[in-house]
Amino acid sequence: MPLIVQKFGGTSVGSLERISHVARIVKDTRSKGHDVVVVVSAMNGETDKLIGLAKKVTDFPHPREYAALVTTGEQVSAALLAITLQAMNCSARSYNTQQIKIYTDQEHLKARILDIDTKPIFDDLDGGHIVIMTGFQGVTNNGDITTLGRGGSDTSAVALASALKAHECQIYTDVDGVYTADPRVVTKAKLLSEITFEEMMEMAGLGAKVLQPRSVEFVGKYRIPLRVLSSFKEGPGTLIVFENKCENEDSLMEKPVVSGIAFNRHEAKLSIKGVPQDATSVAKIIEPIANANIDIDMIVQNIAVDGCIDFTFTVQRDDYQRALDLLKNTGKALGAKEVAGDPLIAKLSIIGVGMRSHAGIASTMFNVMAKEGIYIKLITTSEIKISVVIDEKYLELAARALHTAFHLDKDIEEEK
Amino acid sequence: MPLIVQKFGGTSVGSLERISHVARIVKDTRSKGHDVVVVVSAMNGETDKLIGLAKKVTDFPHPREYAALVTTGEQVSAALLAITLQAMNCSARSYNTQQIKIYTDQEHLKARILDIDTKPIFDDLDGGHIVIMTGFQGVTNNGDITTLGRGGSDTSAVALASALKAHECQIYTDVDGVYTADPRVVTKAKLLSEITFEEMMEMAGLGAKVLQPRSVEFVGKYRIPLRVLSSFKEGPGTLIVFENKCENEDSLMEKPVVSGIAFNRHEAKLSIKGVPQDATSVAKIIEPIANANIDIDMIVQNIAVDGCIDFTFTVQRDDYQRALDLLKNTGKALGAKEVAGDPLIAKLSIIGVGMRSHAGIASTMFNVMAKEGIYIKLITTSEIKISVVIDEKYLELAARALHTAFHLDKDIEEEK
Repeated sequence: MPLIVQKFGGTSVGSLERISHVARIVKDTRSKGHDVVVVVSAMNGETDKLIGLAKKVTDFPHPREYAALVTTGEQVSAALLAITLQAMNCSARSYNTQQIKIYTDQEHLKARILDIDTKPIFDDLDGGHIVIMTGFQGVTNNGDITTLGRGGSDTSAVALASALKAHECQIYTDVDGVYTADPRVVTKAKLLSEITFEEMMEMAGLGAKVLQPRSVEFVGKYRIPLRVLSSFKEGPGTLIVFENKCENEDSLMEKPVVSGIAFNRHEAKLSIKGVPQDATSVAKIIEPIANANIDIDMIVQNIAVDGCIDFTFTVQRDDYQRALDLLKNTGKALGAKEVAGDPLIAKLSIIGVGMRSHAGIASTMFNVMAKEGIYIKLITTSEIKISVVIDEKYLELAARALHTAFHLDKDIEEEK
Repeated sequence: MPLIVQKFGGTSVGSLERISHVARIVKDTRSKGHDVVVVVSAMNGETDKLIGLAKKVTDFPHPREYAALVTTGEQVSAALLAITLQAMNCSARSYNTQQIKIYTDQEHLKARILDIDTKPIFDDLDGGHIVIMTGFQGVTNNGDITTLGRGGSDTSAVALASALKAHECQIYTDVDGVYTADPRVVTKAKLLSEITFEEMMEMAGLGAKVLQPRSVEFVGKYRIPLRVLSSFKEGPGTLIVFENKCENEDSLMEKPVVSGIAFNRHEAKLSIKGVPQDATSVAKIIEPIANANIDIDMIVQNIAVDGCIDFTFTVQRDDYQRALDLLKNTGKALGAKEVAGDPLIAKLSIIGVGMRSHAGIASTMFNVMAKEGIYIKLITTSEIKISVVIDEKYLELAARALHTAFHLDKDIEEEK
């Protein structure tokens, strides 16, 4: 039977009771005849506790030592899971990434995986063992411990699945898969049984925080079939697929045009208007914001009739006041006519690979919004996504109306 | 300047404040020009916490996984100490025993050190770094993690000192050295600036719990100059020396005949009397006790006028009732005349290498006891030690009287 890589995050291994539940999931998979490689995070809260200790010593702990410190938590959960499986008569062996080498570059706190020594894993699998690996960490070729950055255990799992040519990489989290929209907002939201990689990229980047964007990138690079599912609630989860891996075109043809609706309510909008046009003016607007480490999300720029530039962008709401102050300075320096902002906006996007071959999606979207009396403040589009900025207070209304309009609502019998 | 290995136990690194104090001790040693290799235990309580987790899963955790679990605590304290030293502008690098290999056998929970890869340590020392190693652990030649058993960090330090040919191995604890007697009982007890290895062996085995008996053995095997000192209170501590390493005979000649007084109050005495003599009778008495995992300490046997055997021994007081029950059964089986016990006894010993060349020590000891009206219930002797068993209630009186009689009391000016 094919090899499956299963990854369990900090909440999934957050207590001995949770670890015992994880052991049952792993044992079940094994008893179906699969070879199983497990990747675990540290028990919930442990890594933060270690980070807290280092930060009490100094604001700038040495990266090499900091990595050695914060990677101990995964070894604890890996060993505890192995002990639990052994106690259930299921042969399992835990390893850290120094024992079974996951080689990375020298970026101790955000290292990139270079190579994985798969031979000892295959040897153990051949010997009938379940292999449990510590997530989130690696080792340089001179033996230093590194970390893959926050959420790095997802990356470990995907990289292992790729190196081992696994049949599937299963990411267990506290959500039971990817929904057509956030079920807390849209009660009729449906669990998607499949989603394409490209759609998932957009969903992950747009605030549907199921997977770290970085591990989704990894999936794209190595084209691993990846399933997101819950360690708390049984179910098939959502499989992330690649379009070119669909066996028949029909499966894609039958997909709804819009797969899901994503939104982020914690955004703010800033505009600078009437900036005299100049090859350097856009750079001059962006630079101070970037230097202040403020992430810019949507950008819209147009040239007014008078030849001046109007430039609008969105930032995380927490960064709004700092960004506005910087933009006002820039406005003065560049002789802009107006600098304005709005901190109470939300971004809403419809996403679907089917949009590429279907005209009129945008017009349907805008019609729905108009019918509900929702004023659209900003629009950006990509091949498989349309994003709009609206007043935050209309977010729920807009999400529900679009969810219904694009036929994403649960069927009546599903709802029971 | 010569290389020094410094070991800090769990209490010494029990908090960030304590770690910062340890960092100052290490930095001081370095600033005197020494190369320094540091060995650390886990922060106080951490290893017990991890053991508690494993024991909640199963009473018999798999040794390989159990070792992987409980060795994470040392990596935390090693990294925190490195971060602290770096923050004090003192270049330090932490390693676990997988990074700098301390090879052991396959006994995961009580492994013996086979070999140490010293090259990376010397490379780092040559590069001007302080090297910090995780104590208590090692690695097998196939990469499994092992532990050296409780108190194993002392063994790590001594083994490293031996492999690195260190000038001195310094064991920092919460006591400031070895005293002529327990200062809580004998207020006039003096700190010994030196003690011979043989005396230390007797002291360690007799309840003066400064060092693990096993690490003292290691010192004997590798003949490392070892200093016991406090991380809480400045001072020179006690140096454990080897007689044949004394540069001039005088230093030994001047030593007092008795170096110290050790005692253990938690003992109990058992006797079986009038056992018909037979080549197998001693074995038959001992065997049930040993099979019940009860450690026997002192043993005295003599043959009475009627040719029957009287056999007396001591055990830890906690084991008294079990041992007595077993002995009663044995008594019946062997047809002994009497089985008796006394749970309220204490053992007291005087120790000193000088005893070998001085006659009359035993007679002085017994005279002192007689003068105080203390009845001696049992006597055993070795070349450098005389042990007696007395009623526990006389222990303090006997210890103080002997301390004075053998000229161990502090001088008046010392006492100030």
